Amino acid sequence: MDECHRYPQVCGRYHAAADLLGKRWSVSVVAILVEHRTVRFNQLRDAVPGITPRVLSERLREMESTGLVERHVVASMPVLIEYRITDKGAALIDVVAALQRWANTYY
Amino acid sequence: MDECHRYPQVCGRYHAAADLLGKRWSVSVVAILVEHRTVRFNQLRDAVPGITPRVLSERLREMESTGLVERHVVASMPVLIEYRITDKGAALIDVVAALQRWANTYY
Repeated sequence: MDECHRYPQVCGRYHAAADLLGKRWSVSVVAILVEHRTVRFNQLRDAVPGITPRVLSERLREMESTGLVERHVVASMPVLIEYRITDKGAALIDVVAALQRWANTYY
Repeated sequence: MDECHRYPQVCGRYHAAADLLGKRWSVSVVAILVEHRTVRFNQLRDAVPGITPRVLSERLREMESTGLVERHVVASMPVLIEYRITDKGAALIDVVAALQRWANTYY
């Protein structure tokens, strides 16, 4: 049975979106990128307490493949790798802001 | 170094809150409970496409332990188990609504 029929307010598109954020640290990494737009790997690692480099790499690869973030190689010496939030990712700002308000109340 | 100093907008409380929702289906289960307030296990299972009973049980136990949901046993024949969203959980409605708007644009 189609869940959109039984639960019209919480539908397939919502679950697809929720699934994009449904891994540990995803919502944290998105927040840092939404705020800073362009961030280097080590800055992200320092900004998310407890995340390991391996897991951060995984999350960034996932976010690249779902179109939330772009990886840019800056031709400098040494070469710099930057991660930039896309328009699609930046549009999550309302989600981040709402969670921030909730965190301020409950944490 | 304290990440709240370097990233004042995205601080420890935010990451703690994000961590509560950082598992697959958490954000989906919260949405169904926010909308319906009181839901039975099987209703939740039917409402979240792709979730298995084992994972749903895990998520509900986690959400009980973090105070987002309460488990109630209804003295009927047969006995009914209901899950009710708490005030703390229901306050996530703005997060759910923001994600819903985002999903409607991008999915």
